[in-house]
Amino acid sequence: MDTIDTFGLGKEELIDRADRQMNLYLEDCGYSTTQKLALTCRILFDNGHDSGLAGQITARGTDRTTFYTQRLGLGFDEISAGNFLLVDEHLNVLEGEGMANPANRFHSWVYRARPDVNCIIHTHAVHTAALGMLEVPLEVSHMDNCVLYDDVAFVARWPGVPVGNEEGELISGALGGKSALMLSHHGLLIAAPTIEEACVKALAFERAAKMHLLAAAAGKIKPIDVELGKEAHDWILKPRRNTAAFNYYARRALRNPHNRGCIELPEGHARLATTR
Amino acid sequence: MDTIDTFGLGKEELIDRADRQMNLYLEDCGYSTTQKLALTCRILFDNGHDSGLAGQITARGTDRTTFYTQRLGLGFDEISAGNFLLVDEHLNVLEGEGMANPANRFHSWVYRARPDVNCIIHTHAVHTAALGMLEVPLEVSHMDNCVLYDDVAFVARWPGVPVGNEEGELISGALGGKSALMLSHHGLLIAAPTIEEACVKALAFERAAKMHLLAAAAGKIKPIDVELGKEAHDWILKPRRNTAAFNYYARRALRNPHNRGCIELPEGHARLATTR
Amino acid sequence: MDTIDTFGLGKEELIDRADRQMNLYLEDCGYSTTQKLALTCRILFDNGHDSGLAGQITARGTDRTTFYTQRLGLGFDEISAGNFLLVDEHLNVLEGEGMANPANRFHSWVYRARPDVNCIIHTHAVHTAALGMLEVPLEVSHMDNCVLYDDVAFVARWPGVPVGNEEGELISGALGGKSALMLSHHGLLIAAPTIEEACVKALAFERAAKMHLLAAAAGKIKPIDVELGKEAHDWILKPRRNTAAFNYYARRALRNPHNRGCIELPEGHARLATTR
Amino acid sequence: MDTIDTFGLGKEELIDRADRQMNLYLEDCGYSTTQKLALTCRILFDNGHDSGLAGQITARGTDRTTFYTQRLGLGFDEISAGNFLLVDEHLNVLEGEGMANPANRFHSWVYRARPDVNCIIHTHAVHTAALGMLEVPLEVSHMDNCVLYDDVAFVARWPGVPVGNEEGELISGALGGKSALMLSHHGLLIAAPTIEEACVKALAFERAAKMHLLAAAAGKIKPIDVELGKEAHDWILKPRRNTAAFNYYARRALRNPHNRGCIELPEGHARLATTR
Repeated sequence: MDTIDTFGLGKEELIDRADRQMNLYLEDCGYSTTQKLALTCRILFDNGHDSGLAGQITARGTDRTTFYTQRLGLGFDEISAGNFLLVDEHLNVLEGEGMANPANRFHSWVYRARPDVNCIIHTHAVHTAALGMLEVPLEVSHMDNCVLYDDVAFVARWPGVPVGNEEGELISGALGGKSALMLSHHGLLIAAPTIEEACVKALAFERAAKMHLLAAAAGKIKPIDVELGKEAHDWILKPRRNTAAFNYYARRALRNPHNRGCIELPEGHARLATTR
Repeated sequence: MDTIDTFGLGKEELIDRADRQMNLYLEDCGYSTTQKLALTCRILFDNGHDSGLAGQITARGTDRTTFYTQRLGLGFDEISAGNFLLVDEHLNVLEGEGMANPANRFHSWVYRARPDVNCIIHTHAVHTAALGMLEVPLEVSHMDNCVLYDDVAFVARWPGVPVGNEEGELISGALGGKSALMLSHHGLLIAAPTIEEACVKALAFERAAKMHLLAAAAGKIKPIDVELGKEAHDWILKPRRNTAAFNYYARRALRNPHNRGCIELPEGHARLATTR
Repeated sequence: MDTIDTFGLGKEELIDRADRQMNLYLEDCGYSTTQKLALTCRILFDNGHDSGLAGQITARGTDRTTFYTQRLGLGFDEISAGNFLLVDEHLNVLEGEGMANPANRFHSWVYRARPDVNCIIHTHAVHTAALGMLEVPLEVSHMDNCVLYDDVAFVARWPGVPVGNEEGELISGALGGKSALMLSHHGLLIAAPTIEEACVKALAFERAAKMHLLAAAAGKIKPIDVELGKEAHDWILKPRRNTAAFNYYARRALRNPHNRGCIELPEGHARLATTR
Repeated sequence: MDTIDTFGLGKEELIDRADRQMNLYLEDCGYSTTQKLALTCRILFDNGHDSGLAGQITARGTDRTTFYTQRLGLGFDEISAGNFLLVDEHLNVLEGEGMANPANRFHSWVYRARPDVNCIIHTHAVHTAALGMLEVPLEVSHMDNCVLYDDVAFVARWPGVPVGNEEGELISGALGGKSALMLSHHGLLIAAPTIEEACVKALAFERAAKMHLLAAAAGKIKPIDVELGKEAHDWILKPRRNTAAFNYYARRALRNPHNRGCIELPEGHARLATTR
């Protein structure tokens, strides 16, 4: 046990101590890529991202020009580690049965433009979608949502159904170096280095959109201090915290008997799927 | 596998390719008329269309002057393939036990006026009902809701309880050639060539009404480009997509043990019910 | 079967025919007073009327100066036919174990003032409570909510905690001959000739309050025509329709295993409880 | 049975009689400290306080410079009597496995400043969080929420991530002698003499925030009379009423099979845990 008087310590020293403790106590999750993707789908479904067959999730395969994606026709509550497709960037299916959502094309554009990105989530969560009808940027004005602080790009003009290369170019261009994108009249995009971080940010995006709508209906949203917003962004996004949050949401999802099968891997895919 | 470089293809060519693939990969559902109707009732109930005993759903029988409708006194969560009534356009019961909702009269008027229509859904979903208190048209300003783009008629003045022929004439007249109708102080009407399309459009209507209310409370809704709205309308409404969406929602409904019995057919009705 | 051409009939004749049919096809429920009360509690709980231990429900006993009420300390989801108290108008317990909510005092005042009233429901449903913070009357501007059209009195000024005779006098006076009362900063009151009607009106009240808030946040609520509102009030409130609606909600409540025991009667109470 | 005519009694006398009856009829709960804490976590989770891994709950141990708190990495729906940590005010773990949330530091500051406080609840419930984006005080304008009347302090300026002693000083200073605190861009804080009272007030806070947002979106909130608000505050907060409300919510939580294990005590902790 620690015997120093911590009431005299400065904030930076306390943050350092917390960091060291978190690295000691918070564990990695041990799930494979497709298990993490499937869990993310179930987590998103349980947290307001359901919009029928709209929305896609992808993560790079071991060959980094390929990615895993769900089969067109499945809802987020039906996607399992065992039914993902592995596709190339032209959306040709390399493994699995079925076809990819043609709208996955803009994922290919983002992966080409952003080597740091390994997972993309795109949903039409209802509050994000409603906020998008106003053509305004997402206001990040709550501590928890600072995982997105100064990190959300904005497309105000809706370019139409996103199945062309035009939209791929537009979306990857608008995203730039950010990790999220608000697409007016459409939905949200998250592009992150890990599935865990993408999941945490997608949850935060829709929650932030709901809070934005609730607050704006009742008054005038006040901004938070820029420096504090950035500090919170970096503090909350420490990888061990993302993993701890992802693990928590995964446990919650797996309490639902319907979700339990989602992490079972089929014979054929098992080898590839465990490489990340 | 396809080996051409799809990054160089134009949007129309990509849409054609996607179309061909969807026809190949997305399957029909194989349900009978009354099974589809029952599933639609359960789907609507699970998606915010519950308003007690209000609302009706109908689909034409093999004799096109007849239609299936639910028994008065059952909620949408109680309607099953085995308890539909087959009625003539005067609401006389031809098959089944019980009476039709007297408000079904306006369905008869719509079927007379619109030979292209085979299914009608009418509900008092809560956001649609609340929006109707404002006497404003539904604003379709999100991609997903474009299944209703430029396709929703509007009745601003409430004519009273709809059990007369007057309301039948008014409603069928106001609907015109559209596939949906916003009834102020009342609810929504969908009139579609198939049950699947009617189901998909009814879900979109209430979701659009919810989004309209959320967005309008927080700011000023911006319209989408007319040409893009129409393009999205046609793209999303391709029959295979409607069927894929209907199948998905049906699977979701059938995961609930309470709903499983809804697709069981009684002895006597089985023959007729499988004709569409 | 009826063979006349109903498309030529006037609205009044159609309403008469519907009436006769409803009397033929819609059945009574067969529940005892305390069973109906218990079912109403479960129905209200399932439909947004939960506010912890606040709220009361009562119905007259066979001695009309007595009434059944729930035991203080039970939530609406715990009240059963077997755990009601029978109290006199001073809230002395005549049958059952426990004490009545002291706030039941205003029920005594209403029963004294209104011999036509046999059931009173009072809840702090959340939308009603929030609307009450604005000190505005409930706007009844949707067909379904016309069960309350021109039938809701209004108390704008909050008189404090309602455990005195002062509040009993104030509330029964404000109610007058109406069947409902909006209590600012407090909640709703329904006073009706039957439990079924009280249940249907309580559900409509909270739904109307929710719709009022949703609509007012997004625009300006438009009134409906006075004559049509009154016509709808009388049409929807026909006793057979109330019973059909109550039966439907009771079936829904009883699908939940937790609620099934709520209609079991204890030995001692069974005789009295079946008298209405 | 009481035979006096209560219709002639004054309000104060009626309140006294109700008080005596409540002391007779409403029972204590019999749970240990960690059981109460665990139940509170489950109750809060079920009532809209979920915000992932954010939020903490603590209660003093038998050594009043120590407190029980949850292990970092668990959600409110996972916290059980058997997995609490006992920590000193420097957050060193005295009993149990894992680490405390570093943000617990401000709990230590509040316990130091307020000897009357034995339980602290801090959550980022979504309506509270959204309201906090407006930098406005919570408007307590409904009878039920009077448990917080004139009892909520306010921090308008967000000081950043609360892991330093600076925030502990700021928060305990802003709280002063009140029992609640609205933290803009952040969340709510409750500081109460008992776990039961803290639980009841935390539920009321988020419900009040939701009602504030709903009402403010639809109109102008009217204040209640100051004297009546204070009277209600004292009436509703009588300890037996808090216990009755807590017991009720605990029964509700324990109906959910997932929650049942939350009150099981481990061998080692049992002795300490039953001391309050």
